[in-house]
Amino acid sequence: MDPTEETLRKTLAEKQTAVTSQANIVRDLKASRADPSDLEAALLALQALKLEKTTIENQLQAAISGSTSNGVNKEVFRQTLVNTLERRLFYIPSFKIYRGVAGLYDYGPPGCAVKSNVLAFWRQHFVLEENMLEVDCPCVTPEVVLKASGHVEKFTDLMVKDEKTGTCYRADHLLKDFCKEKLEKDLSLPVEKVTELKHVLAVLDEFSAEELGSKIKEYGITAPDTKNSLSDPYPFNLMFQTSIGPSGLSPGYMRPETAQGIFVNFKDLYYYNGNKLPFAAAQIGQAFRNEISPRQGLLRVREFTLAEIEHFVDPDDKSHPRYGDVVDLEFLMFPREEQMSGQEAKRLRLGEAVSKGIVNNETLGYFIGRVYLFLTRLGIDKERLRFRQHLANEMAHYAADCWDAEIECSYGWIECVGIADRSAYDLRAHSDKSGVPLVAHEKFLEPREVEKLVIAPVKKELGLAFKGNQKMVVEALEAMDEKEAMEMKATLESKGEVEFQVCTLGKAVTIKSCMVSISKEKKKEHQRVFTPSVIEPSFGIGRIIYCLFEHSFYTRPSKGGDEQLNVFSFPPLVAPIKCTVFPLVQNQQYEEVAKQISKSLTAVGISHKIDITGTSIGKRYARTDELGVPFAITVDTTTTVTIRERDSKDQIRVPIEKVASIVKEVTDGQSTWGDVQWIYPTHSSISADE
Amino acid sequence: MDPTEETLRKTLAEKQTAVTSQANIVRDLKASRADPSDLEAALLALQALKLEKTTIENQLQAAISGSTSNGVNKEVFRQTLVNTLERRLFYIPSFKIYRGVAGLYDYGPPGCAVKSNVLAFWRQHFVLEENMLEVDCPCVTPEVVLKASGHVEKFTDLMVKDEKTGTCYRADHLLKDFCKEKLEKDLSLPVEKVTELKHVLAVLDEFSAEELGSKIKEYGITAPDTKNSLSDPYPFNLMFQTSIGPSGLSPGYMRPETAQGIFVNFKDLYYYNGNKLPFAAAQIGQAFRNEISPRQGLLRVREFTLAEIEHFVDPDDKSHPRYGDVVDLEFLMFPREEQMSGQEAKRLRLGEAVSKGIVNNETLGYFIGRVYLFLTRLGIDKERLRFRQHLANEMAHYAADCWDAEIECSYGWIECVGIADRSAYDLRAHSDKSGVPLVAHEKFLEPREVEKLVIAPVKKELGLAFKGNQKMVVEALEAMDEKEAMEMKATLESKGEVEFQVCTLGKAVTIKSCMVSISKEKKKEHQRVFTPSVIEPSFGIGRIIYCLFEHSFYTRPSKGGDEQLNVFSFPPLVAPIKCTVFPLVQNQQYEEVAKQISKSLTAVGISHKIDITGTSIGKRYARTDELGVPFAITVDTTTTVTIRERDSKDQIRVPIEKVASIVKEVTDGQSTWGDVQWIYPTHSSISADE
Repeated sequence: MDPTEETLRKTLAEKQTAVTSQANIVRDLKASRADPSDLEAALLALQALKLEKTTIENQLQAAISGSTSNGVNKEVFRQTLVNTLERRLFYIPSFKIYRGVAGLYDYGPPGCAVKSNVLAFWRQHFVLEENMLEVDCPCVTPEVVLKASGHVEKFTDLMVKDEKTGTCYRADHLLKDFCKEKLEKDLSLPVEKVTELKHVLAVLDEFSAEELGSKIKEYGITAPDTKNSLSDPYPFNLMFQTSIGPSGLSPGYMRPETAQGIFVNFKDLYYYNGNKLPFAAAQIGQAFRNEISPRQGLLRVREFTLAEIEHFVDPDDKSHPRYGDVVDLEFLMFPREEQMSGQEAKRLRLGEAVSKGIVNNETLGYFIGRVYLFLTRLGIDKERLRFRQHLANEMAHYAADCWDAEIECSYGWIECVGIADRSAYDLRAHSDKSGVPLVAHEKFLEPREVEKLVIAPVKKELGLAFKGNQKMVVEALEAMDEKEAMEMKATLESKGEVEFQVCTLGKAVTIKSCMVSISKEKKKEHQRVFTPSVIEPSFGIGRIIYCLFEHSFYTRPSKGGDEQLNVFSFPPLVAPIKCTVFPLVQNQQYEEVAKQISKSLTAVGISHKIDITGTSIGKRYARTDELGVPFAITVDTTTTVTIRERDSKDQIRVPIEKVASIVKEVTDGQSTWGDVQWIYPTHSSISADE
Repeated sequence: MDPTEETLRKTLAEKQTAVTSQANIVRDLKASRADPSDLEAALLALQALKLEKTTIENQLQAAISGSTSNGVNKEVFRQTLVNTLERRLFYIPSFKIYRGVAGLYDYGPPGCAVKSNVLAFWRQHFVLEENMLEVDCPCVTPEVVLKASGHVEKFTDLMVKDEKTGTCYRADHLLKDFCKEKLEKDLSLPVEKVTELKHVLAVLDEFSAEELGSKIKEYGITAPDTKNSLSDPYPFNLMFQTSIGPSGLSPGYMRPETAQGIFVNFKDLYYYNGNKLPFAAAQIGQAFRNEISPRQGLLRVREFTLAEIEHFVDPDDKSHPRYGDVVDLEFLMFPREEQMSGQEAKRLRLGEAVSKGIVNNETLGYFIGRVYLFLTRLGIDKERLRFRQHLANEMAHYAADCWDAEIECSYGWIECVGIADRSAYDLRAHSDKSGVPLVAHEKFLEPREVEKLVIAPVKKELGLAFKGNQKMVVEALEAMDEKEAMEMKATLESKGEVEFQVCTLGKAVTIKSCMVSISKEKKKEHQRVFTPSVIEPSFGIGRIIYCLFEHSFYTRPSKGGDEQLNVFSFPPLVAPIKCTVFPLVQNQQYEEVAKQISKSLTAVGISHKIDITGTSIGKRYARTDELGVPFAITVDTTTTVTIRERDSKDQIRVPIEKVASIVKEVTDGQSTWGDVQWIYPTHSSISADE
């Protein structure tokens, strides 16, 4: 707890005690009809105490909402932003005329253009520059695949139901809301209670169904809408289920991630890559999560675009050939240790984080660096981007290390990209379930001598002993790893027999010395066969775009100063429209020039908009600033025109035949606005932003 | 029926009769122990007749498979193509390690690149060049939307079930297969039967469930795998169903097309466009159809990418401002009349087809032209592309006109793009269901005097007569169109009352003169309010890509002549990889140059591949020809390199620093190979394609 808050809460409690006891004194004096001057003095003291209490209450309120006063600003900022986004059709609640569906949104024209620019840049930055193998797999996925991946069993959230209406809620959300509200609104909360609630908030992500249920009972939490009592929490699978084909006998799901499509293709992709490691496959596509009760606008939705990379690498060599390109990048990192000891994220050189072992390996480090470059080039603010390492209890048991690119927005720090070293887990799971080995080979230049475990079951003896179960016993014996086998060998040698658990039989059997021979033999090997590790950067495109909206949005006063104008400062790379073309006044000659410029822009593939309405030029600028259009071309002569840059509002004058190539250069990133400003004369106009 | 086939079938039947009667004569002669010389003569005659019969049988077989001998070549061609596509991972049956799912395919790396190039060009050609409003809506769609569109009720295929195993089949497919096989294999089929089966093949797409069922019974068709009897045909809805949210109370479907997402957004998009018509919205996205038993590889799948355009236009003015750009295009068209009279598709000038009224209106014509340009620029063969008009019975009742872009491939003529004038149907359907008016306004410069129908129900009288049903009667009266209302007015004036059907009540009621006043009044109107028509070009991207594979694929002998090499002649625009870089021999200097060229290619965004294996240059060419890579750069000095064009195998020699810009120019379509061949010296090398 914040020290100020703690002190104030304590002082407030003491003051409350003082007020109560002084009130008792006053009451006693009244009852005993004491001297009026004594009573008056006691009353004055009570009044003074009450005043002091109120002062402390105000201080406490201010301390609690220290974040909140900021929070209020955040709410206002977000509301202005969201209004602009919805009014200009960056996005729209889907099926709005039918009152919509929670968690489903459409991208309207400018949003759709931003999205397709972000995806095009993702392809350029990752797939093309890194020679990745891009694939495109269906969303409809048969059950067997998602059983192997663990999603059928484990991809769940805990849910409670209103016991009368049946309305469903996420159990952790209800508990979180309860704690937050209590902390903000109840000033008389004893310090121990405050500490408890804050602890619950910190750990509730790790609560089991039982723990969540008992807290909900303990705190008397009811359904928010009806105040009815709630069911016990139970898991709800977040996959949209469907049925493949007409028989109704083949269950399927809409994929919750795109990665599985890559894993099941590993064998073919490895072959396509000339049977060489490392290589990366990538996929962009829709994924689906049937959220229990979606909130937070574009951040928690039921259908979204993922862009995922699966980089397959030899577990014994996780170096990366292009690691040198990112080693000197410096940015905010938030390692496990800093989180556990209550410190802040700190600026680290990537090379240092890897060499000190904070980041598990070079390849993981390389992708952290590449993700940093990707996000900042899109326009994400460096100061509001950090890489947070997963705590040990957040990671799956098989994961070697895991970092999230978190972007700060009005909802807090939001996970937008996950970068995980998942070791061999996924390929092994699909190998086991499908029976198709998903492995890589390393051919030795010269054969190597290795000590190999040899387990030789004696089938005759096993057959006599176990009859019909023989096959399962043999398989279980052969599946022992080195440690198990050597322990069995030792026990057999000392005791002559051993109890042995056979999973497929669901019981233990007695193995005697005569039934199996276990030894280590030296062998020449020509190759090494192994399951590759996979390092997975996974991008939530919608979340990145929403954060980009927040980081790009600002307001500035109109020239008259009478209103605030909205601006999106998108870099040209992601701007939905690259430029607008305006004739300064309505006039056929200027319109002709505008059309001619429009044609030349289309020819070089620059998306743009002509506005020949008679609206004032200032209004037309304001309209397009609100769409984040970086450049405005104003036709005010028939030989040269002006180009205005959105954020500086600076203008240059250029010949008509140069316009398209200048805009293209600056938009493609071959030149900067500064470069072209240096070449062409500045244009200053009084009438400009009126 | 083909006249040759008909004659032969008749001759064969006569010959069979002759054989039978001659055989009878022989039997009689034997029975009567006739003169051996008579018997011998009769036997010789029988033998001669049998020989003649065999000859005719052979001729008939040849006549029937006239198309089929061609068909056999097609099968061989397709098998070679499909083997190449699967081996080089253009596409892969999805979830192959789990034995796949019928109708689901992945695009592997080169296929995925082709697809993303096709989509990028679609965006450039349609969205950017035509200033369309692109949107991006979710696949998960609530039931109410697809009820309004009619999909919940009508998006079905007829299915039969194996009565013992429950296996499902498409009823029309079984009947089609039966007829085709019978016609091909049963030479003794009487001519009338042949005519009948051919007729069934021609019309079975129009069969009702009852007609299909009775034909299946009549022909004794059984389940193909088990020969068990089949159920009656019944409709199966082709949408994948799911449930939105955790309650299980909100049914949803995976969208069967992307169009509905645009229609429900009409109001916002119209506003975004400044409340002006015409405008077009566009969407690229996944669509889903739970096919009963998918066949034909990539042509009939359960999940596919659609690119759809909805062009909204004033029904009274379907002109198009850019119609002039396409008016002189000439290509194969197959109007309704030519189809009905058994003629072939014919070459028509688009402007003529529109002016003669063969194509319903300019906007529809404009899009036909734009689709033609799109497909041919992708590499679709002009001679194997035709625009077929829908027959009257193929079109929905509301459609004004409809043309399919059909591409010929080894499966026949395949519908790849549908271009339909759907009139006001979709917007009206969603207006009705949602209660939100989806209309456009035309403001008059000056108010216009119009005669307006005024229907004024007299609520008091109606209330007395119909009590609780009054509201529905009032609504039905007000909903009458001009013709209905004027008829009612006339009847009321002549007879004093009239029977009136109220749909919402499901019965007729008696309306008396006192209950409603109907009149025409002159009014001043300031605007016209109307439901726009929509013209919808809808592109099956997967089908277009498959046809492109067929049209681009050819084989040529290797230099040694000992094997056939596969080539895809993709235009640079769609080629998955634009060029390869090979050092001629393994040598560090050349490798350095190759890497330098690779960097410069990446910088200008050209996808390419380095191959530094020691394989012979001829083999390396062959490998990349099979991926359709248009240009190969071979490093054979440290100052200049050669560029080889895939189809001509011509080579030019260029300075290293020019390579990237040359490849980019030719790939972007700013220059042709011919242009650069004219500038740079030809390189001829004996060792080239060895």
